[in-house]
Amino acid sequence: MDFPFTRIKGGVGAPKGFATSAVACGIKNPDVERLDLALIHSEFPCTSAGTFTTNRVKAAPVKLTQNHLRRGEIRTIIANSGNANACTGLQGVHDARAMADGVAKPLGLKRSEVGVCSTGVIGLPMPMMRIDPHYEALVNGLGRKQGDDVARAIMTSDTREKQLAISFDIGKHRVRLGGCVKGAGMICPSMATMLCFITTDANIPRDCLQRSVHEAVDESFNRITIDGDTSTNDTVLVLANGQSGMTPARRSGPRCRQFAKALRWLMLELAKDIVRDGERVTKFVHVKVNGARTFADAQKVAEAVCKSALVKASWNGEDPNWGRVIHAVGYSRARIREELIDIHYDGIPACLGGLQTDTPMQKLRDIASKPEFAIDISLNQGQADYDMYSSDFSPEYIDFNRSEYAYWKQARKDGLV
Amino acid sequence: MDFPFTRIKGGVGAPKGFATSAVACGIKNPDVERLDLALIHSEFPCTSAGTFTTNRVKAAPVKLTQNHLRRGEIRTIIANSGNANACTGLQGVHDARAMADGVAKPLGLKRSEVGVCSTGVIGLPMPMMRIDPHYEALVNGLGRKQGDDVARAIMTSDTREKQLAISFDIGKHRVRLGGCVKGAGMICPSMATMLCFITTDANIPRDCLQRSVHEAVDESFNRITIDGDTSTNDTVLVLANGQSGMTPARRSGPRCRQFAKALRWLMLELAKDIVRDGERVTKFVHVKVNGARTFADAQKVAEAVCKSALVKASWNGEDPNWGRVIHAVGYSRARIREELIDIHYDGIPACLGGLQTDTPMQKLRDIASKPEFAIDISLNQGQADYDMYSSDFSPEYIDFNRSEYAYWKQARKDGLV
Repeated sequence: MDFPFTRIKGGVGAPKGFATSAVACGIKNPDVERLDLALIHSEFPCTSAGTFTTNRVKAAPVKLTQNHLRRGEIRTIIANSGNANACTGLQGVHDARAMADGVAKPLGLKRSEVGVCSTGVIGLPMPMMRIDPHYEALVNGLGRKQGDDVARAIMTSDTREKQLAISFDIGKHRVRLGGCVKGAGMICPSMATMLCFITTDANIPRDCLQRSVHEAVDESFNRITIDGDTSTNDTVLVLANGQSGMTPARRSGPRCRQFAKALRWLMLELAKDIVRDGERVTKFVHVKVNGARTFADAQKVAEAVCKSALVKASWNGEDPNWGRVIHAVGYSRARIREELIDIHYDGIPACLGGLQTDTPMQKLRDIASKPEFAIDISLNQGQADYDMYSSDFSPEYIDFNRSEYAYWKQARKDGLV
Repeated sequence: MDFPFTRIKGGVGAPKGFATSAVACGIKNPDVERLDLALIHSEFPCTSAGTFTTNRVKAAPVKLTQNHLRRGEIRTIIANSGNANACTGLQGVHDARAMADGVAKPLGLKRSEVGVCSTGVIGLPMPMMRIDPHYEALVNGLGRKQGDDVARAIMTSDTREKQLAISFDIGKHRVRLGGCVKGAGMICPSMATMLCFITTDANIPRDCLQRSVHEAVDESFNRITIDGDTSTNDTVLVLANGQSGMTPARRSGPRCRQFAKALRWLMLELAKDIVRDGERVTKFVHVKVNGARTFADAQKVAEAVCKSALVKASWNGEDPNWGRVIHAVGYSRARIREELIDIHYDGIPACLGGLQTDTPMQKLRDIASKPEFAIDISLNQGQADYDMYSSDFSPEYIDFNRSEYAYWKQARKDGLV
């Protein structure tokens, strides 16, 4: 495929007219000095669009930001790691609002121009006494720093910052698109414990932006899974400030389609990066289902395989165990016929017509030993296909997720519980 | 609750007129001497009923036994561990049939009076050359041995045999009911990689037996989960030979209800035993959902919580992490309202109205540290409830399930692949 984009430095700070900042508040632990409160700010008004968790238990900042997004004029985002501000009741909403006000005032904005995002432990009150003193430093620190500080401050169990920026032409104008994500655990279709911020200096009216964001999320963040859980805080926010000088994109016009294509590419790259950096992940597996009777059937098969604990354990063991794959296909509730199913590892047949092939096992094991490989599942019943990206399940993943007691101990010290 | 049953020795061999036998064939590994082929035989004709995996990829013995069960006269079961005979095509069906014939002939039965069950690795042909020579020894070994040999021979990754037998009165007659199970991995609602054989000398016509079995499975084996996977081989078979001398039970009569109650109790005990003996399991957790708007909503909530990798990891860590519980409730797709949800650990409130309580954390940790505890989730929206039984996810579970390569190496030695 031709790649009509140029990679440029940075992330959300790369497009024209965006400034970023981050400070260390000690939200999770006051004794540890790390960036945990971030600010993204457009010096000019923006159109904005986003998608949010489908979990019915929504964190307070999600409720607030959904509300602000109805006006579609968010131009500033304040985000923290270390506490999700979820299951915190009215106090949580009050705290999220205080965070919005904390930066809206010094920036001279309305509260509804600010989005608020939080990620971290669920069920403990926000330690506002450690956040409140930092709004001024956060605003004063704003500068053209490409966004590295934001990518770093939103990390929780991520092992590295994940950001990306590109430039490309729409008509005669060069535009820039930048983004960053945090992911790691609870990554699942229908979104993840995942925050994604994207900025652009393209001139994208709200109707084009909204449609482009929904389509791009469907083909990126909704296609990845690490542990099959869906979080209370997932948020994708996209801000467009038009500072590239381009002519506004009309919803069904070619400029909108060009922008949508770039957005989809950027989101898919960021989504894949989340899987690669999943908690204690050692494998990145591209599961490609084809030949399903319907799109829904293809999706069911892909999700069943990508979420199966036994399949994921076998990936961790570098075992090309197609038996476990076909068994997940079987319980997916998709309409399948066992005797028509072919399964290939990186193009090498492991199962044809539902039966073991005579491919030497060592050849398949060599593929399953690679850090990244693809499994093709051909149902041979129709034309529908569906791609997903998944990871293995490691003993270390479970070990890593055994306890969040440390959070609770700190909240007790803080007098919050 | 009053317990109107008397526990008696043994399992499937305990009821009158049933004999059992088991031999060591080396199905998985010819160098290891362990029982892996079992026979249950009623000396008298039986009525029979059963339920099977809902996986669309069904093992050959499942297809065969489903077929035989249509006549409802199965009185003999041959079962093996070490190979599931799944994804083995026409050869698999041929092999399953050969196993039925292998014991039908020396016993003087029709093939349709024999059920065949297999459990083990998927996708490798059955090593029939190691099974075929043993039919005669298997039949000659039949004796009144309570069934311990069967319970042992069907084990795969189970750590101990799981069997149970009771006696109780129906009318003036004392009847006996015995059963054994194997489980361990891939245990999930909608049945498990699970074999369950139950025998009784009660006189239960087919219509009563069928209804009783379906109801009992719904409230036992469909309520347990270990890793959320559903296998290709799950089978429950119940044989009734009437040798207690009791008057036949009519479908809607009191004798049928009495039998159904005993069957439900026995199956639930066996099902719980499967969870307790799950692969590398350290916790047994009873999840009780109540106050849902509908039965389906209650079920969705229970299944989401019991299947969440993050919830199960926290159980392994003895962390009373109600935040992860409520977050699974949120993505269950049930109609819930966060601000109405109460969560109790063994009756102690951890979350009331969606918010953290002031229960001392140590008190909740003491409960989560016990090998068995209950989590009550009250949705406070209606009258429907649903109980499930689940286990933790341990690092050792993943480690244990990384590879089945040893199976493949043996199949290669056998010249089967």
